[in-house]
Amino acid sequence: MTNKKVGEDDYVLLYLDVRRTYMIEVEAGKTFHTHKGYIKLDELIGKAFGETVKTSLGVEFTVLEPLLTDYMMKSSRKTQITYPKDAALIVMFSGIGSGSRVVESGTGTGALTTALAHYVKPAGKVYSYEVREEFQRAAEKNLKRAGLLEFVELKSRDVTMGFDERDVDAVILDLAVPWLVVPHAYEALKPSGTIVSFSPTIDQVVKATEALREHGFVCVETVECLMRGMQVERGKTRPQTLMTGHSGYITYARKALKHSQKTGGNEAEKA
Amino acid sequence: MTNKKVGEDDYVLLYLDVRRTYMIEVEAGKTFHTHKGYIKLDELIGKAFGETVKTSLGVEFTVLEPLLTDYMMKSSRKTQITYPKDAALIVMFSGIGSGSRVVESGTGTGALTTALAHYVKPAGKVYSYEVREEFQRAAEKNLKRAGLLEFVELKSRDVTMGFDERDVDAVILDLAVPWLVVPHAYEALKPSGTIVSFSPTIDQVVKATEALREHGFVCVETVECLMRGMQVERGKTRPQTLMTGHSGYITYARKALKHSQKTGGNEAEKA
Amino acid sequence: MTNKKVGEDDYVLLYLDVRRTYMIEVEAGKTFHTHKGYIKLDELIGKAFGETVKTSLGVEFTVLEPLLTDYMMKSSRKTQITYPKDAALIVMFSGIGSGSRVVESGTGTGALTTALAHYVKPAGKVYSYEVREEFQRAAEKNLKRAGLLEFVELKSRDVTMGFDERDVDAVILDLAVPWLVVPHAYEALKPSGTIVSFSPTIDQVVKATEALREHGFVCVETVECLMRGMQVERGKTRPQTLMTGHSGYITYARKALKHSQKTGGNEAEKA
Amino acid sequence: MTNKKVGEDDYVLLYLDVRRTYMIEVEAGKTFHTHKGYIKLDELIGKAFGETVKTSLGVEFTVLEPLLTDYMMKSSRKTQITYPKDAALIVMFSGIGSGSRVVESGTGTGALTTALAHYVKPAGKVYSYEVREEFQRAAEKNLKRAGLLEFVELKSRDVTMGFDERDVDAVILDLAVPWLVVPHAYEALKPSGTIVSFSPTIDQVVKATEALREHGFVCVETVECLMRGMQVERGKTRPQTLMTGHSGYITYARKALKHSQKTGGNEAEKA
Repeated sequence: MTNKKVGEDDYVLLYLDVRRTYMIEVEAGKTFHTHKGYIKLDELIGKAFGETVKTSLGVEFTVLEPLLTDYMMKSSRKTQITYPKDAALIVMFSGIGSGSRVVESGTGTGALTTALAHYVKPAGKVYSYEVREEFQRAAEKNLKRAGLLEFVELKSRDVTMGFDERDVDAVILDLAVPWLVVPHAYEALKPSGTIVSFSPTIDQVVKATEALREHGFVCVETVECLMRGMQVERGKTRPQTLMTGHSGYITYARKALKHSQKTGGNEAEKA
Repeated sequence: MTNKKVGEDDYVLLYLDVRRTYMIEVEAGKTFHTHKGYIKLDELIGKAFGETVKTSLGVEFTVLEPLLTDYMMKSSRKTQITYPKDAALIVMFSGIGSGSRVVESGTGTGALTTALAHYVKPAGKVYSYEVREEFQRAAEKNLKRAGLLEFVELKSRDVTMGFDERDVDAVILDLAVPWLVVPHAYEALKPSGTIVSFSPTIDQVVKATEALREHGFVCVETVECLMRGMQVERGKTRPQTLMTGHSGYITYARKALKHSQKTGGNEAEKA
Repeated sequence: MTNKKVGEDDYVLLYLDVRRTYMIEVEAGKTFHTHKGYIKLDELIGKAFGETVKTSLGVEFTVLEPLLTDYMMKSSRKTQITYPKDAALIVMFSGIGSGSRVVESGTGTGALTTALAHYVKPAGKVYSYEVREEFQRAAEKNLKRAGLLEFVELKSRDVTMGFDERDVDAVILDLAVPWLVVPHAYEALKPSGTIVSFSPTIDQVVKATEALREHGFVCVETVECLMRGMQVERGKTRPQTLMTGHSGYITYARKALKHSQKTGGNEAEKA
Repeated sequence: MTNKKVGEDDYVLLYLDVRRTYMIEVEAGKTFHTHKGYIKLDELIGKAFGETVKTSLGVEFTVLEPLLTDYMMKSSRKTQITYPKDAALIVMFSGIGSGSRVVESGTGTGALTTALAHYVKPAGKVYSYEVREEFQRAAEKNLKRAGLLEFVELKSRDVTMGFDERDVDAVILDLAVPWLVVPHAYEALKPSGTIVSFSPTIDQVVKATEALREHGFVCVETVECLMRGMQVERGKTRPQTLMTGHSGYITYARKALKHSQKTGGNEAEKA
């Protein structure tokens, strides 16, 4: 067994305890300061993942390989990010996997994009649209850091004007006006393809649902997910006092062919 | 655009409404009976996904390509299955993706195995252990149906005896006594690798957490996920009356190297 | 200590286990049949509460004095009843207590009315409006059974026409169109009095909230309450699998005086 | 209609908006400072409840009569208080009402005591035990402020030594070791009387439940209540982002007579 070693410019997760983890880039010659003393990053180079490193004050941090959830949660944010719990369900309900072609809008700072890219790699692709340039730049940086930029095509576009792609496996919407984009999503999707929309308000859910039903989608459903942490300690186990009460609703559906399409389309194909 | 067509022996999802969907194998010459009339399966062959088919009573069903969640939910069950919401979080917290090597125990009838295989394909592999033969057979059937059997190695073994694999990316536990398997999971995992355990009772969570902390795991956390459906209709939107109140707790952690290992192990590697 | 004894025509709760309790009236000469054998009701007369009674098959049931929650849950129902968890919060947010004068609309079959009467007795009064006669009759029966009818005045009225009462401490709304009744509730309430509205749909909540804000109410808030049962057994403790995902939202507010009222009203009082 | 007027030394709730309410005592000659300017308390005297008062900066606050929930939430705290949502359910499951005699342990700073006193007044009584003197003093102050001290008897006692009262309607436990107090609660309760225990940890619930089952209680159940606020605004309605994930579990049960008691007790009574 050869343990994977930390290399220069790698990202590592330094773990002190459950509440204190830090993701840093291992830049040669630099120093990382914590409230428990500093760590010379050169000392990290060559360490095996899973080993510990001591700060100047003798406190041990464990050196871990960052996971998808770390890249998502530790991303540089300029906007509300999609939480891993929501990203997990969005990915699951979308049905995507390795090799899938996915359209996403909007990119934001790329937390959800990171998850999508992670699951479609290596043969798949995420086409992610965003109008706000500073968000797109942040997303690019975050995706690069996670090593997933090559699986994403970042596009600058007001998506109410439509998507370039056709026959994609899934369209993921995380924007203020999903109902305006539903007809374009229909055009971009393959038949039986999935759409998933994530929205914080109920009114967005209602409008998106109506648009989906009107535009030939079936299996239209909406769920919300409440995740609660547990404090686990023998004799003192209990749910955590604070929790996120709401992030957003997840609405998902599948594209059915409209009657005109079904006839016309098939006729054309038969011809 | 060439629509994907239904072929003989394909599995399709027939959709009537949100509460009534049926997954069937398109066997030539057979008939599928519903309370809305019957469908001759020969009529499905050559249909494009997304098209509708009419029953003998003239009721239209939409023909959809099954998704991962369909294969999970419509699996033949001999035991409580892992719900998609839980599978989604297990996959997310495990950090796995295409190419990952994953050990799972127990297989059960393979709902979670199906999800794991879906996300590690095509280059990855799931090594799934199960002692009860009739479960393993059901799992094999379910995985074959989902087209994912080639990404899974089904193993008959009492896992309290240990795993064969080493240096895997993740170990997923869904069994009654996770704490007994934690030392074996540690052996099987690569450093910084993840373990995720799914358990219905709090006592299982406490024992698993203690075992994880004792055996050199860090980032030990437990969450539970409550998913609630919404009935969406303009003017009448509301959460659904019934929901699943509990399926299980998800406990996850990462493997750190123990001090002896760190020194010894590295010495050995250097030698 | 003199134990309270079961008398003829009393209501008692017969307890077999947590899932099987029965509320019956102790009618002399009658027999109560259970799947565990029958009980001659004459045998109950003179029993102390807390004692057990044996069925013809020798199975013991404990004889309990019914509580408010029993009268609510075991009421004869012709409509969806208000659950104790919701009634508890409605009562709490209304601020009512012994001696309070409360207007309720609609009565339904009286589950919430029973709770309100229980908490305002003996000096207070519930004025409860209902247009559907068969509901009112059911409510009367349920209130009588609970021994609370004397604290309730049941009124037949379409409340969109207004309430008769003035200067009441609280108005409780459990009807389809709460926003239409808000102006009447304002008229009926004392200044600083409370209104609580219970509604299953979000649209009802939005309309009620808007009406409250427009009509001089302050402290307008809405909550929902999810209650989950636990299965408690050493080594196997866990939340229950099934739970009620939604009953309704609770919107509550307090009456502020409008500017015209404040001046006019006070001038008049000073004169 | 005569509006109730604010008098000297009354407590009033000053309302600016949903998030900013202040409970103050109207002491003549004093000034209340807010971030929106100050209010001379003399100006409040003689105001009708429901009217507004202007600060020195011209900002209007509505003058409201405090409710039970205000006295609970605005109490001076030296410890975690019982939230209104939990107090509401505790009261509901206890079955108490006006005239009930209730034993409580421990008093803490009296938030739950305040609720109990509110619901048993005027003929009932709360016997509330607390060993820590500074908590008892805080509770006394809070109860006095709420006008409910006369319905409470505050007792200094380690309740693992037992209660003085007999034949009470309900025993309410909010302490670290409820299982040690269960036998004493049994002695204090009338047959068919109720016990309600509130505990943050699962282990407390398990131990309390076992003690209840062993000591002759029936109908033993445990629930937890998740309350979530809604942000209500047309077109933007959504659940609130933050919520309390956990306060405590509520375990409740009823006293059955033990066999020896039933025979012996009844014989004695017949004699």
